[in-house]
This record gives sequence, C-alpha cells and structure tokens, in this order.
Amino acid sequence: MIVAMQERATEEDIQGVIERLVQVGFNVHRTTGAVQTVLAGVGTPSHFDHKDFELLSGVAEVVRITSPYKLAGRGFRPEGTIVRFPNGVAVGGDEIVVMAGPCSVESREQIFTIADQVKSAGASFLRGGAFKPRSSPYSFQGMGLDGLKLLREVGDRTGLLIISEVMEISQIDLMLPYVDVLQVGARNMQNFNLLREIGLVRKPVLLKRGIAATLEELLLSAEYILAGGNYDVMLCERGIRTFETYTRNTMDISAIPVIKKLSHLPMLADPSHGVGRRDKVAPMARAAVAAGCDGLLIEVHPNPDKALSDGAQSLFPEQFDQLMDQLRIIATAVDRNIRAEIPVI
Amino acid sequence: MIVAMQERATEEDIQGVIERLVQVGFNVHRTTGAVQTVLAGVGTPSHFDHKDFELLSGVAEVVRITSPYKLAGRGFRPEGTIVRFPNGVAVGGDEIVVMAGPCSVESREQIFTIADQVKSAGASFLRGGAFKPRSSPYSFQGMGLDGLKLLREVGDRTGLLIISEVMEISQIDLMLPYVDVLQVGARNMQNFNLLREIGLVRKPVLLKRGIAATLEELLLSAEYILAGGNYDVMLCERGIRTFETYTRNTMDISAIPVIKKLSHLPMLADPSHGVGRRDKVAPMARAAVAAGCDGLLIEVHPNPDKALSDGAQSLFPEQFDQLMDQLRIIATAVDRNIRAEIPVI
Amino acid sequence: MIVAMQERATEEDIQGVIERLVQVGFNVHRTTGAVQTVLAGVGTPSHFDHKDFELLSGVAEVVRITSPYKLAGRGFRPEGTIVRFPNGVAVGGDEIVVMAGPCSVESREQIFTIADQVKSAGASFLRGGAFKPRSSPYSFQGMGLDGLKLLREVGDRTGLLIISEVMEISQIDLMLPYVDVLQVGARNMQNFNLLREIGLVRKPVLLKRGIAATLEELLLSAEYILAGGNYDVMLCERGIRTFETYTRNTMDISAIPVIKKLSHLPMLADPSHGVGRRDKVAPMARAAVAAGCDGLLIEVHPNPDKALSDGAQSLFPEQFDQLMDQLRIIATAVDRNIRAEIPVI
Amino acid sequence: MIVAMQERATEEDIQGVIERLVQVGFNVHRTTGAVQTVLAGVGTPSHFDHKDFELLSGVAEVVRITSPYKLAGRGFRPEGTIVRFPNGVAVGGDEIVVMAGPCSVESREQIFTIADQVKSAGASFLRGGAFKPRSSPYSFQGMGLDGLKLLREVGDRTGLLIISEVMEISQIDLMLPYVDVLQVGARNMQNFNLLREIGLVRKPVLLKRGIAATLEELLLSAEYILAGGNYDVMLCERGIRTFETYTRNTMDISAIPVIKKLSHLPMLADPSHGVGRRDKVAPMARAAVAAGCDGLLIEVHPNPDKALSDGAQSLFPEQFDQLMDQLRIIATAVDRNIRAEIPVI
Repeated sequence: MIVAMQERATEEDIQGVIERLVQVGFNVHRTTGAVQTVLAGVGTPSHFDHKDFELLSGVAEVVRITSPYKLAGRGFRPEGTIVRFPNGVAVGGDEIVVMAGPCSVESREQIFTIADQVKSAGASFLRGGAFKPRSSPYSFQGMGLDGLKLLREVGDRTGLLIISEVMEISQIDLMLPYVDVLQVGARNMQNFNLLREIGLVRKPVLLKRGIAATLEELLLSAEYILAGGNYDVMLCERGIRTFETYTRNTMDISAIPVIKKLSHLPMLADPSHGVGRRDKVAPMARAAVAAGCDGLLIEVHPNPDKALSDGAQSLFPEQFDQLMDQLRIIATAVDRNIRAEIPVI
Repeated sequence: MIVAMQERATEEDIQGVIERLVQVGFNVHRTTGAVQTVLAGVGTPSHFDHKDFELLSGVAEVVRITSPYKLAGRGFRPEGTIVRFPNGVAVGGDEIVVMAGPCSVESREQIFTIADQVKSAGASFLRGGAFKPRSSPYSFQGMGLDGLKLLREVGDRTGLLIISEVMEISQIDLMLPYVDVLQVGARNMQNFNLLREIGLVRKPVLLKRGIAATLEELLLSAEYILAGGNYDVMLCERGIRTFETYTRNTMDISAIPVIKKLSHLPMLADPSHGVGRRDKVAPMARAAVAAGCDGLLIEVHPNPDKALSDGAQSLFPEQFDQLMDQLRIIATAVDRNIRAEIPVI
Repeated sequence: MIVAMQERATEEDIQGVIERLVQVGFNVHRTTGAVQTVLAGVGTPSHFDHKDFELLSGVAEVVRITSPYKLAGRGFRPEGTIVRFPNGVAVGGDEIVVMAGPCSVESREQIFTIADQVKSAGASFLRGGAFKPRSSPYSFQGMGLDGLKLLREVGDRTGLLIISEVMEISQIDLMLPYVDVLQVGARNMQNFNLLREIGLVRKPVLLKRGIAATLEELLLSAEYILAGGNYDVMLCERGIRTFETYTRNTMDISAIPVIKKLSHLPMLADPSHGVGRRDKVAPMARAAVAAGCDGLLIEVHPNPDKALSDGAQSLFPEQFDQLMDQLRIIATAVDRNIRAEIPVI
Repeated sequence: MIVAMQERATEEDIQGVIERLVQVGFNVHRTTGAVQTVLAGVGTPSHFDHKDFELLSGVAEVVRITSPYKLAGRGFRPEGTIVRFPNGVAVGGDEIVVMAGPCSVESREQIFTIADQVKSAGASFLRGGAFKPRSSPYSFQGMGLDGLKLLREVGDRTGLLIISEVMEISQIDLMLPYVDVLQVGARNMQNFNLLREIGLVRKPVLLKRGIAATLEELLLSAEYILAGGNYDVMLCERGIRTFETYTRNTMDISAIPVIKKLSHLPMLADPSHGVGRRDKVAPMARAAVAAGCDGLLIEVHPNPDKALSDGAQSLFPEQFDQLMDQLRIIATAVDRNIRAEIPVI
C-alpha cells in the first residue's frame, strides 16, 4: 500500500502514518521528495481498511497496490483453468461452448422440443430456469422442482449438460441431483452467504457479473467460492447498467479480454440479457466470440411470442442455427472452434 | 399501454398488434393520424411483458403507462404512511428520526458506550450490524447472535429502538426477538425470496435502495413486502454507483422528493454509506434533511480509528452532537422537528 | 405525443390538457378507460417542450412518440447512405474501411513511415491529429497547419484519404484544402455552432459519439449537420463513461446494430479510444466488425513508446498487420470484405 | 508517480522501468519487498503520459500521486478565493449569493418583470440566456445581441449583476460590455480553445461541470482559465448523467463539499438544470445550501407555462420568494447568510 503525504504534511503527520502502518502489520519504506513524502507499506497484513488511512492527518492519497483477490487472480494458475465435464466437454480450452435454451422451463413439450433444436445446432449445454427472480411480485415465478426433473430427463436423453439458476441457499441441495452447472445470477453476485455455501459444494458454477459490479468485485465474489475449495468457477458478462436506455443494459464486451488477463477462470458472455432485444442478440454474440470469450449463454425458445418470460430476447430456433454458422467462422479468426453437434455418450 | 406504429406500417401490421393486445386482455382504442397510427390498450391484464410488443411487425414504440407497483404507489394511501413504534416514536410524521450507531457491534463496551452517546445527542434508534456482508471473504463478518443479544440489552436499558440488517431468510426468525426494525441492505434489495418472507412477518422494515437500482425498482421491491401484508416499510437512499470515483457512491438526494411524491412510504437517507468518507457525512446529512427526508441513518463510533469495519465513514461522537444541532435548525425550514433526547419509558 | 392522465384526474384537468395540446398545434384523440383517460396528440407542431405537459394538473405521464430527428432517421433513406470518395473508396457499402494512423502528427518522418505501414496492411484512410484537445493545459497541443500540410502531402503520395479533427469554427476553412474527412471529436458532439457551420460545407464528416451521449443525442447532432445540406455524415462509437474504471471508457458495441437500425448513416467504431489500452484494441476491433460496423478508426504508431500523445493505446505496426488478417476472416462471417491494399490512382 | 511491479517481474523488467522513469525526468526511489518491488518517481517532469508505463514489461500498476492541476488546487490559495464585484457583492465569502432569472431572454417586458421579482426576493444576479445551445436544430436559439442589450439595461436600472452564457470564441468580445459574469455551460466545459480565450479576459467566469465530467476534470478545465491569468473563476454543479431517468440528471450534492476541500474556488449549484422539474427545484436548492455551496443559479420565469425554453423547470415568482425564506433559515445552520434585498448603488 502506498500513502502519499500532502505537500504541507508535518514530520509529526508522517510519523503518525508510519506508526499506523506498522500497527496493522506493514514494513514501511519512506521516500522523501523535494515537495512530498511517500510511504510504501510492504507486506500482507490481514485485517485493515485502506480507506482508514485517507483520513489521517497530512495524508493526500492512499493507493492499494496488491489486488484483494488471490485465488481468482491469473497468478494463481497462469496456465488458465479448464472446467471439465464427464462427457468430455471442457470450458476454457480450445473449444468455445454454447449454452442455449429458454429463459424458463414451461412444459415438457417445450423443453424437449428446444433441446433437440439447440443440440442439432451445436450447443453443448441446455439452459432453463426452474426458479425465476422477477422484479415484479406479480410475474411468473417458475416451475420449481418439476422444472428441474424435466431438465434432468431431457439432459439424460440428449447428452446435453444442464445449467440452471440457484437463488437461495435452501435450493442448493435440491438442485444438485438435477443440474451439471449451478448458475448464480447477476442479482446474487454479492449474496455472500449463498456464494460461501456454493464454495462447499463440488459442482461447477457459472457466476454472472452484477449489473453495477466492477470487474474487481466480480473476481472478489468468485474468490468467495474458490475459498471454499470449489475451483470449477466460470464467469459471465451479461451487461451493465449505464445511462443509455435504448438497450436494456450495456454489454461490456471489453470485460472479456480484461478478465482473461486478470484471472485464470473461463469467461463467458450472455448477449440475451446483455441487450434484451432479439434483433441485437446475434451481433453481440458474434462480438463476444470475436473478443475472445470461452462460451456463450443464449436464450432460444421454440415459440418466443408465447414465452412466459423474456420472449422478447429469445431467438427463434432458425435464427440460432444461422448464428452458430457465423460463430464457427469467427472462431477460426481467434484460433478457436465450435463443435457441429455434441455426440451422445 | 400505448403502441405507436411506424409511419410505414401496413394495415395488416396494425391488425396483428390489435389482435395481440386483445389476446393478453386489453380493450383497444385506435387513433389514426395523418402519418401514424397509435393504439391504446386499456385495462389491466395480469400476465404479459410489454417488451414483447416492441418486436411485432410495424411497431415503432411501446410505452407502458400505468406504474407496475400498486401498493407502494402514493395513490394507495394518499395521506402517507406513518410507521409507529410502541414507545411513541413515529417515522413519516412531523418528526425527523435519527438512527445512529456503529457499522458493526464489536463488543459490549463499544455498544453500551455509543448507545449513551447517540441517545444524548437525540437519536431514537440504535443501529449496529450483527451479520455483515463484506465484498472480501477475508474481512470481519460480524458477531452474529451475540451481537443481537447485546443490541437488545442496550435497547431495553436506554429506550433506543434497535435496527439491524437481515441478510438471509434463515436469519429472520433468529432476529425477530431482538430487533425493532429489520434492515434490508442495498445488495439484497432484489433478493426477492428474502423480501417475500419479510412480507409475511409483522415487524417494521427499512429497505435500502440498491446501488444500481432505479427508483421504480426500489418501489417494486417494496411491493414484494407490502404484498405479503407487512405495511410498515421505510425506504432509504444510500448512494448510487456513477462514473465519479472521488466519493464511494453518489448520493442521489433528489430521490428523496421523488419518492415522497411517487409513494406514501417514509423515505430516509444514509449519508455514511452514501459518501463513504467521514468529512462528507455531515454536509450530506444536512442536505437530506433540507430536501425533505423523514429520517437519517448515521454511523457513529466511540473510536472510529479502531473500528473493525467502516471506520473511515464513522463520525466521532462529538461530530454527531454538532451535526444534530445543525439539523434541528434546518428541520424548522421544512416545518419538521428533531427531538432533543428520547425519554425512557 | 401521448398524455396519460392520473386515475384521479378531474374532467376539468382533462379539458385543460386538451386545450393546451390544441394550442401548440395537435389534433387530439381521447381514450376514456375504466380507470384512466389517455390523450393522443397527433400532428407535428413545431415549437414546444413535451416536458411542459408533465406539470399540468392531473397528468400522470407524457410520452413523445415520434423521434425528434428526421433527416438522420432510417426512414429518410431506407436503403442506407454510402459516402463515396473520388478514388472509389466508399463507406457504408460492402467493404469495411479502416482509418489508421497516429494520434498526432509529430514529424515528417513519423507520418511518412506510418502511412506506408498502414497502407500496406490494407487501410484506406490515414488518420492523424493536427489540433489536439487535451484535458490538461500543460500537454502537447499539436503541430497545427504544418501538420495538415504533411498529411496532404503524404495522402497525395500514397493515395490514402486523410481524416483529421476540427475543433473550432475558425479551423474549418483552414482545413478544407488538406483533408478528405473532417472529424468532429467526442467533446464537440454537442458544440452546435460548430456542427451548424460544418453542415454548410461540402466535405464528408465523421461525428463521434460523446462519452455521455445517448444514441438519440448522437442522431440529433447529426441532424444539425444534415439540416445544413451536408449529407455525407459518418457516425462513430468510441466508448461511453460508466462506473467501470479498468478500461478508460466502456465501448458500447451494441450501439453499432442499434444505429444501423435507427439511421441510414454509416456507423464506425474507434476501439483505440474506446478502451485506451493497447492490448485491448485488437479484441474490440474484432468485436466491432463482428457486430456489423462499416469501418474502424485505429491508432497505429511506428514507435508507440515515443509517441507524444496516446502512446499507450497505439498499436505497433506489426500488431496492426496481424489484426487486419483476423478482421478479413470475421468480415466474411457478416457478408462483408476488407481490402488487401488500396491501389494508387 | 508510483510504479508497482508484478510479483514475477524480473530484475531486467525493473531496470527497464527505472530507465524510463529517469528518461522522463524523475528521481527514482526503489522499495524491494518480499514479494514485490515498488518504484517511486519523485519530481515534476513536464511531458509524459502515466498510462505509457502501464504497458511496460513486468508492471502491475501505475499510480499518479500529485494532482494534475496546480492553480485550481486548494494548496494554491489555502484561504479560499472570493470573487468581488464593484457593487460590493462577493462570491465565496460569508454571504450565499443567488443568481436568478429566466432560461432565455424573450422580450423586454419579460426580463424587466422578472428582474424586479427576483431582486425583491433577494437575488444579487440576474441570469438569462441570449445565445442558447439546444440539442435539436429545430428549437428556439435565443435573441442574441438584442438579448444582451436588454440584460445590460435592466442590470443598470436594478443594480442586479448580469450573468449570461458564452458559447463561442467569437461571442466573447461581443458579450464583454454587457455582462458581469461570463457563464460557460456544461457542454463547453471541455471546449479547451474557448477556455483558453476566456483565460485571457479580465471578467469573472462561472464554469459549469459537464454532465459526464469528474470533479478532477472540472478542476483541470478551471486550470485552463486560471493559467491565462483570469483568477475570478466560480464553479457550478448542475447534475450528472446516471442510469436514473426519473430526474433529467442526478444532481451530485456531494460535489459541493468535495470541491470546497480540493479547491479554493467558490462552488455554486444549479438545481434547475440538476433535476429539470419545477417541483424538485426547491428541495435541491435547500440541499445545496445545507451542503455548503457559495451560491445558487435558479430559473424563475414570470409565466413558466409560456416560456420559450425550459418552462418545466422554471419556478413561479411566488415559489422563488418562499424558497428564499427557507434558504435564509438553512444558511444560519452553516454559519452563512443570504441578503434580503440588494441595495441600488
């Protein structure tokens, strides 16, 4: 940590700051300039808030140098993490994976139909919500356990891996037998109790960035899961909130190369939630692959006009097919590939 | 709901939209202009997403007219809600209430000392966290149940009402015997499962605005609680995330008069979290009262330099005293008052 | 324009609004619902502020339906605008154009060296600043007229078209003989006097989005130029300001498909300013092409470490070469192409 | 400047950074920690971009310590700047000044009527636009020189000081004989050519914060004016752009205490533009005074419903009267005062 003193700081001010730095566990190196003194605190004290130093007498600025996450940082695994599944699918390697399906599981017929469609287009994962977080208490809230059972059944039949969102600690145990990936939604990115419990489970997790979360905060939330011993964490950009209102959110495509540099974890993108309008999903999916993402989450519905939730951002199956063809070309430009169709094992 | 058609929309397009409006339950009124047709859907259909209409052929724009919250809207209780406590304290009336205390309960000595200090300055509520949400898994996480017991004890002794944050459904029952107000923090503003459970309880709630939440979303979250039958909801502005980084958040003071107009619920402000720096807390507390808030949450610590969390934004007791004197003057400018000291009953 | 009345609006309130609508020049259509009356103002009155209606008695909400720009809207030229240059280069057609070069013209040697390099990689335009807007008054402010002369000379020699930024009305006449495109920077996007003057000139313009400008505001600024009779306007996304600070700005890639739908004007992207860090420029350039942009502005410098401005975001010539190869592959995925090298005519 | 090296940086990396620091003119102090080396560059080199260092091999983070503004910083004039006018009015002292009037000068009758009204309520300055920046080319653009002459005439008659906006370098000389304060609007805050020219004039300036400008950028823009020798600069908060759309902008009240700490310049607030709705102007004006501002800009119109621009945010004269009474009470809470009525001299 660096503490830059004000130009008019007295020697007493400086000694006060040095004492406080030593107190919390730093070794202190002092640089006395012509106009300004700078103190560098070296070491790794466990418990302190760097903002406390900003208010000490004579302090001009305080800068934390080392990143507050350890396990999520690229330095922990410089070669990168690959999350591997029993059927041979791997996230974070040469292949770009696609997770597709409806916003919510609505019926047996709906989920079986769409599973076949996304599989034949090249998806490896089937996504579908059983529990739905809705901003209005008067909206459809999901099929619950019945939805989970349908997902497992269709996963076993098609070979597609199943990903579904967990919203509550009490849902974790309930979901484990039915899903291959636990998804943590944007609104729960800083639900630290939930993250801690998920860290104790041995099941891959997809953690979405909150709409107002910095990339550092995303990595700190991943750290909660990793700290519990669950290392199979995938991250996902899904749009941040900005002043622009034409799109529901502003999808931060640059988050992809930034996270790939800062962290070893796979980084995916969810263009459906990122823009919230069907006709913008394909351009943003292409952009995410071009920018280097490890995978995509895409909402596809057999009949979007009749969807019980998020129909406006769901692709028609034929649009998804066409998009996958474009993505295969783009993947080659970044030395990656996308499979044609997942084999049944 | 209003659907404005594109200038070049065909009659077929228009009929298609009309059919869809009727399908979801609207009565449709059509206005045919020289250049453009506008359709008004009148009525209150229960289940539909207005964004679905944006993608229909020939549609230029879709505008939802009625607000999606009912119970939280000013129209539900035009005279305003006053949340009343057994000791006579009331939030939302002529008196501006002050809730003060440390970020976290740290020890018996700390909480007893500060309780006496904030009480003598004129606070009616003692705030203090027993469970702490921290963005880093390596930070202090609170005293838990022991903290709650200390809060209750000091509340009974001083007559101060107790407010503390609930972070998890499983904590609700645990907290009920110990607190007078359940606080829902900014990160949980859209934890809908938690809100729903709190709606079933009969205990006043203080709901904080999320750092990226619009005021409409804040009211929709309040709606979750009200819909369960718990009408004693207080709202609280505590800063939103913007591009400005000098302050931790940007405190949206204008949210105060906006919410007072849109809703009947009391609106408070938390300048400590709003700015995150001690020397800016007093100016923002004064601003909030001048703008018409019904109360304040303020962090005060007997020894901020030694606080285990948020020390940098906690006032010294003597600063709090001085602030209360300023607030009493400002309150008179808006025809309100702040008590000198709460009586023991 | 739509005016939705409050549920409790009186007939007197409604008549008041109707009168006002008629006064400003609307024909009024009234829809009386069970709970709420909605008034639609049809027609195109020239002079009024729709916000004035929000404050009339009994009004719940006011919604402007028709877009405030006319000439910039897609409806004005549904087939799209192609900006054509004398040497056959066209912006907005099948070919994606690349404008590359240093942030500032620094010397004869620098600009001649880089011109050859970007040309052989496939750029059609040479970019380079002669007048530099700098946020600090103590930074390098550009070579001025000498820089313009160097640009023209190298343009004539290589066949590259020249684009450079105009910052002031007084610079327009000065620049016309030397440049092929006048660039209006993000900070001047709402310098309406400048835009108006540029509208009177017959020279193509590239108008950059301001860092806090909505897409509607970008189109309104284009309208100022188009209204003067200068129809050769190209737009450019270059990053918006958000809460995320890891990148200098957040590049809003979704602005590309949105503008392509709302407007007939070509839409380019400037990843160098969009992210501000060299290692993120290539991913974002690829993303912009994948999302459907009509061209790119990219900073390339023969020796970025010695650049007098923006060195940190300038590509090395060999990085630019490699990027162009990737872009050629991605262009095919969206049915576009990028030229190998511009012919000298 | 501080350069923190990566944990795995080699000695060669470190020497490379040291060389570069020396090259641009720094003295370098090195701190070698157990895990990480930190380099402090001490001194004040004139020409370099700290971002260039971020891309050097082995660098983890670069932090600029000294603020990039000198003349605008509090350290330059610790006692604070008071801008004094010939009639005895002073901005930045004990008195809080109020600048009131219509958005635009519309007619002789309008401006004479409102001048008397705001004067009798206690305003010291009359505000009114002669040149109007409008986002649509089809809106009213101001009375120009005729408006300036009316302002001067009414100023001489009433004793009110005149403030009006300058939008263009060519307008400066034109305006000097007619106004007492040149106002630079939010959209021109980074029009550096304009700022430079205003720095050469000897006339007080009011510089408004841009809607996406950080406080550091505001001070850097002030630096442009101060660097020219014009020290009579007043700053003004008028709302920033955020995700919240209920208010036109989000007024950043905390900017007031922040600027008062960072700079010696007077800090005003413009609640009319800050919120854009009449019924929110008074609460925000009160909040700004409570937070410590040195003055207010408030739009007042004799007949807001008929205003040619910004009617929706203009107060009625009687609302302004009532507000001034409230402000006088609040001013006493922060040891300031507001005059009852300006004397004619």
